[in-house]
Amino acid sequence: MAPSGSPRSEYTLRRRVLFYEVDSAGIVHFSNYFRYMEEAEHALWREAGVSIAPSSAGVGYPRVSAGFEYHRPLRFEDEFDTRIRIVAIGEKSMTYACTLTRGGEKIATGACTIVCVTKQGGEMKAIPFPTDIAARFEVAADA
Amino acid sequence: MAPSGSPRSEYTLRRRVLFYEVDSAGIVHFSNYFRYMEEAEHALWREAGVSIAPSSAGVGYPRVSAGFEYHRPLRFEDEFDTRIRIVAIGEKSMTYACTLTRGGEKIATGACTIVCVTKQGGEMKAIPFPTDIAARFEVAADA
Amino acid sequence: MAPSGSPRSEYTLRRRVLFYEVDSAGIVHFSNYFRYMEEAEHALWREAGVSIAPSSAGVGYPRVSAGFEYHRPLRFEDEFDTRIRIVAIGEKSMTYACTLTRGGEKIATGACTIVCVTKQGGEMKAIPFPTDIAARFEVAADA
Amino acid sequence: MAPSGSPRSEYTLRRRVLFYEVDSAGIVHFSNYFRYMEEAEHALWREAGVSIAPSSAGVGYPRVSAGFEYHRPLRFEDEFDTRIRIVAIGEKSMTYACTLTRGGEKIATGACTIVCVTKQGGEMKAIPFPTDIAARFEVAADA
Repeated sequence: MAPSGSPRSEYTLRRRVLFYEVDSAGIVHFSNYFRYMEEAEHALWREAGVSIAPSSAGVGYPRVSAGFEYHRPLRFEDEFDTRIRIVAIGEKSMTYACTLTRGGEKIATGACTIVCVTKQGGEMKAIPFPTDIAARFEVAADA
Repeated sequence: MAPSGSPRSEYTLRRRVLFYEVDSAGIVHFSNYFRYMEEAEHALWREAGVSIAPSSAGVGYPRVSAGFEYHRPLRFEDEFDTRIRIVAIGEKSMTYACTLTRGGEKIATGACTIVCVTKQGGEMKAIPFPTDIAARFEVAADA
Repeated sequence: MAPSGSPRSEYTLRRRVLFYEVDSAGIVHFSNYFRYMEEAEHALWREAGVSIAPSSAGVGYPRVSAGFEYHRPLRFEDEFDTRIRIVAIGEKSMTYACTLTRGGEKIATGACTIVCVTKQGGEMKAIPFPTDIAARFEVAADA
Repeated sequence: MAPSGSPRSEYTLRRRVLFYEVDSAGIVHFSNYFRYMEEAEHALWREAGVSIAPSSAGVGYPRVSAGFEYHRPLRFEDEFDTRIRIVAIGEKSMTYACTLTRGGEKIATGACTIVCVTKQGGEMKAIPFPTDIAARFEVAADA
């Protein structure tokens, strides 16, 4: 499938906090922010016309680093936005910046770097992004 | 690898409640009991000398049903026991009963049925348990 | 806040399977169906004009039983519907039936029963639903 | 309760990878490393004679930052060690470094910073660690 339109560089996903994402302190568990960031990333890839994990994949995109700074808590049923932007693209890796907001309030800022790998004999080995994938993404203007 | 010793029919796993398993009501989220049951099941399989999901597996064991009745809540850092027993073995399926206790107190009772499947062209198809697997398990005496 | 309109008895929630919900067999982990059922339940409560877990709550709704039968697997990025219906309402408890479908295909059928409790000295004790809550729900016509 | 013995500065937790922690790429989902780090942290606190989240807590310890670098994947049933060390203690915050290893192999390195807060009217406000807590911990010798 050819890329639909121009390359993509960012996506904003809005949804609510689910009950099982909240811990006993009444706030979203810090590990779930990494899932929110990934959820927005995968929506960005779908917008770019491709799945990050097609069932036939011989190629995958594991994370090599990921981090968050937490500014304010999120609570049950809060509606929030996860904005993900591409801030760097290399031959074999890509780095995202991520901001979570609720209304105008900044909740958290994160980043992660993925690497393109192939699986050979069970081992993961970094390879250049497939041409078809590379053509679908570009670094955000404000990166 | 040959089964080590006689067939197995039950296993009891002791561990503590982890922080991220507790919801904002201060009790273990009900979905996690299904993970506890599975954790005990996989320990039972290891005791029987086999992994339920070897990396080379062409065979898998999805669940066809699972349920729990909840009697008392579990809280953060509670130490509890998950006891799983085989209560029925068919040609292609196996059913477990599961009891969670804390000290002498009954916390929850559950059950689940797995089926042996092979994956052909992406589709799952029920097949008899491999002979080597079937030889490792038997129905519990008190089932 | 007064109930908005007539009592509610069902809700259907559509969303996609997220990456972290899929296990190494390439299908949604069976424990996540219970989270999908809860997610639809909470959307039903919001539709009825109320949160199931307001931050000021002295009342809560733990599950006393929950179960699923699994008919077909769900895979990454599948779009599916979770339909939840109220099939019984008692003075202190409520039972839901739940069906997951993808397109016209039945994926899974589940059920769960919640009980209304108050927390007194850390202990949960069953009490009648608050009048304001009870007025918002009714048993589904086809239950 | 008085601290039992000298202040603690590190802890190593050994356990196996559970099935539901592995994603469809066959490796532990990157978000779970943050849960492993927290699990080791809470074991460190128990070793120091205190729970990080007692049921009566008016004080809590949310994270203000957390990150991981991933070197090698973990797979189902792998036995691994999570070593957590205190690398900085401030009046109101504490920073950990964390290393995951399997056998002698380095799997991942992480860090996180927690802050001591009190909840006043639903808002979290940073406060100095309670004296009893501060007395139980010290920075690791090799930090």
